[in-house]
Amino acid sequence: MKAEIGVIGLGVMGKSLSRNLAQKGFSLALFNRHLEGQEEHIARDFKQDFPELENSQAFDDLQSFVASLAAPKKIIVMIAAGAAIDDLLSQITPLLSAEDIVVDGGNSHFEDTQKRIELLEKRGIHFIGAGISGGEYGALHGPSIMPSGNAVAYSQIEKYLKAIAAKDSHGEPCCTYIGSQGSGHFVKMIHNGIEYVEMQLLAECYFILKQQGLSNPAIADVFESWRKDLDSYLLEISVDILRKQEGDIFVLDTILDQAGNKGTGKWSSIAIANSGTPATLIPAALLTRYLSFFKSYRTQLSKDFPRTDFSDQMAINELKDAYEFARVINHHQGFSILAQASNQYQWNLNLSAIARIWTQGCIIKSQFMIGLIEILKEEEDLLSHPQIQKTIRERHAATQSVVATSIRAAYHIPCLAEAVQFFHGITTADSSANFIQAQRDYFGAHTYLKKDDPSGKKYHTDW
Amino acid sequence: MKAEIGVIGLGVMGKSLSRNLAQKGFSLALFNRHLEGQEEHIARDFKQDFPELENSQAFDDLQSFVASLAAPKKIIVMIAAGAAIDDLLSQITPLLSAEDIVVDGGNSHFEDTQKRIELLEKRGIHFIGAGISGGEYGALHGPSIMPSGNAVAYSQIEKYLKAIAAKDSHGEPCCTYIGSQGSGHFVKMIHNGIEYVEMQLLAECYFILKQQGLSNPAIADVFESWRKDLDSYLLEISVDILRKQEGDIFVLDTILDQAGNKGTGKWSSIAIANSGTPATLIPAALLTRYLSFFKSYRTQLSKDFPRTDFSDQMAINELKDAYEFARVINHHQGFSILAQASNQYQWNLNLSAIARIWTQGCIIKSQFMIGLIEILKEEEDLLSHPQIQKTIRERHAATQSVVATSIRAAYHIPCLAEAVQFFHGITTADSSANFIQAQRDYFGAHTYLKKDDPSGKKYHTDW
Repeated sequence: MKAEIGVIGLGVMGKSLSRNLAQKGFSLALFNRHLEGQEEHIARDFKQDFPELENSQAFDDLQSFVASLAAPKKIIVMIAAGAAIDDLLSQITPLLSAEDIVVDGGNSHFEDTQKRIELLEKRGIHFIGAGISGGEYGALHGPSIMPSGNAVAYSQIEKYLKAIAAKDSHGEPCCTYIGSQGSGHFVKMIHNGIEYVEMQLLAECYFILKQQGLSNPAIADVFESWRKDLDSYLLEISVDILRKQEGDIFVLDTILDQAGNKGTGKWSSIAIANSGTPATLIPAALLTRYLSFFKSYRTQLSKDFPRTDFSDQMAINELKDAYEFARVINHHQGFSILAQASNQYQWNLNLSAIARIWTQGCIIKSQFMIGLIEILKEEEDLLSHPQIQKTIRERHAATQSVVATSIRAAYHIPCLAEAVQFFHGITTADSSANFIQAQRDYFGAHTYLKKDDPSGKKYHTDW
Repeated sequence: MKAEIGVIGLGVMGKSLSRNLAQKGFSLALFNRHLEGQEEHIARDFKQDFPELENSQAFDDLQSFVASLAAPKKIIVMIAAGAAIDDLLSQITPLLSAEDIVVDGGNSHFEDTQKRIELLEKRGIHFIGAGISGGEYGALHGPSIMPSGNAVAYSQIEKYLKAIAAKDSHGEPCCTYIGSQGSGHFVKMIHNGIEYVEMQLLAECYFILKQQGLSNPAIADVFESWRKDLDSYLLEISVDILRKQEGDIFVLDTILDQAGNKGTGKWSSIAIANSGTPATLIPAALLTRYLSFFKSYRTQLSKDFPRTDFSDQMAINELKDAYEFARVINHHQGFSILAQASNQYQWNLNLSAIARIWTQGCIIKSQFMIGLIEILKEEEDLLSHPQIQKTIRERHAATQSVVATSIRAAYHIPCLAEAVQFFHGITTADSSANFIQAQRDYFGAHTYLKKDDPSGKKYHTDW
């Protein structure tokens, strides 16, 4: 009896995804490599641990694993991104035939995915890059899935991915074909970039409230009250985090303030630099994580530059408005990056559909994201949509107040501050960029365009 | 009679550099490719135009050009960065012998330079990547030169580069061996990144003063008054720019506010993202240029979000202090990137020597840079140096005031604002990054370190 679908790589994510597939009734072949003394009989032991895997077949030999699959063979790869994928592909490709389908469910770089699609397509093998969000919990109970590549090949694995995906509020799976090439991994990368900023904004609100003298439970109560209008997964877990105690100690207070990262924020920032899109918040959030690493240096400089007392109170309602304002700007920028990439790579991305599959199963799911499904149908540029404009207009003054007060108080709030900067920049008809152009023409004869000459003629002044 | 040194590529920069070399008495071979109908007899015509080239030899045939050079042959390449360099190297390498030296004087990416060094070294040919700053004027009258690669090979071309380089205030040439690999091009790239920010800061000061109702000549007078303490090449040309009229019209007012870029700011931002260094200002300046491109969109949004009146006055003295504050942060970040790269790539960069060769011949030359020569000898981390700390301490409050007032006024001042944000971040002993780590551990089981456990043990909480 041949298995319907195979899973390669039984780490945390691979195991959860396999159990999810098995629970949906699919017959599975499971494979994990054999590494003497490190990874031994992983698949066999895993199968024995969970009753839903009773009808699954377990392998640590790649050839037998591939042979156990029904044709066309369908394989989901859940191993570390990078060279490990290429190594695996070089081993497995000779075992596969035309029309077989390999799905990469890891956080691969979209350009790598594109190269792999082209490489395998030469042998008629289809490669699908599928961004999968939701962590271990999502993989088991329903992740958000962003698949891309050959559309016909996707149609053959669609039923598996849709079966295991999270379901949106209408019961539809949070999985949709994203587009050609590595678009699925690109969209997942930007999902993570948006996530970096959402996390940073909550950290900044926490910091401001803490500086105002609020205890962790008091901050939790503030965040809890925000959930009424602004509910999101990240806000929900923030409340839990603020309330979590071990004995008399708040766990949060014990955690070292050095924030790690796994690379997708960096990739997003590089993609932004390459794209020409002024998406400022993701790099700001990334560099704030980098800054956090210099803990001993920060501690030394905090002594060299002691803070002076600052007694201005911050209105909590204003902070809520500033938080919402910055979130809107973050989503505006995130979807702008997708729109730019869609145009550049001709992916024809459906931004509303992407918002829809981000409403469940992923880290950035929120009430706001649910609203964006309709808004993005009407207008892909969020800041041009009347409803978004109303939200922004009503919260602009409060945001200015929060940011200005924080600057006078010497609080580090890079993403709240950049959100309002960006808004001021993008709503300035006549900016100071003429001054930059004048400087460039002065020292480098780079020429400039004139405001009153739409012909594109280049001018140079002998300054 | 063989020529001492050859120049390939007679564009604006190549011509100026060649004349500079000839004026120093070196015998030259000049080469420019022959492109039917586009580039014909460039070298011959160039030689005829300038008497100092009387003893130079002109070629549009690569083989004859190479044959005209004395051994070991020394060639400076002044052509566009990118594939053109590789094309040229593939043509010229078969014509060269071991110990010959090729210098790339363009804005090549430092990683490309490193690959080319390795490629040519296989044949015993030395490749020197030399960043050259100063534009057309600098190339002719004395640029700042940042050479790197094989140190022994550099010693053979040193006399040419030092002869044509700008001279610092002690008469020493603004040219020093930077280090191995592509370090020279890396340093030039970061030079340009610092330049992006310096230009942006002046544009922001111009914008603020303009919004306060000052005319261009009045802003020029303000900038002129700043030169007493803060003189720099960019401040000097800013005064000229503000005063330049054609008839009754100020040229600056006619220039379209869309700022271009040639790539080094983008490369710098990508290098920063890859490095883990929280150098926030270069990406902020880059993305501000990107933002400027959306002129019609900005104009539309300016109508959707009309500005309300704002009457707070900005004290011009405070703006001067904020400008100086932000420049210090910019130089701190720029030299921090160099220090990080020096460490990562084992380049052993001499930051003081780099400051010295940036005091003449380049766009970011300034009184402040002259002061940095000594300061960087004493302390490579600028923010840890007492003199820098005094400057920052005395200007912090004014900077907070300028930035906070600008935010309330809805001015777009991304680099002034980020300078103070960064300072607040780097001087915060206990940041909000513990909150980020708690979130990451909650949804991804990424674990965290504890403040009171320096062992590096990773903790995980079941939230």
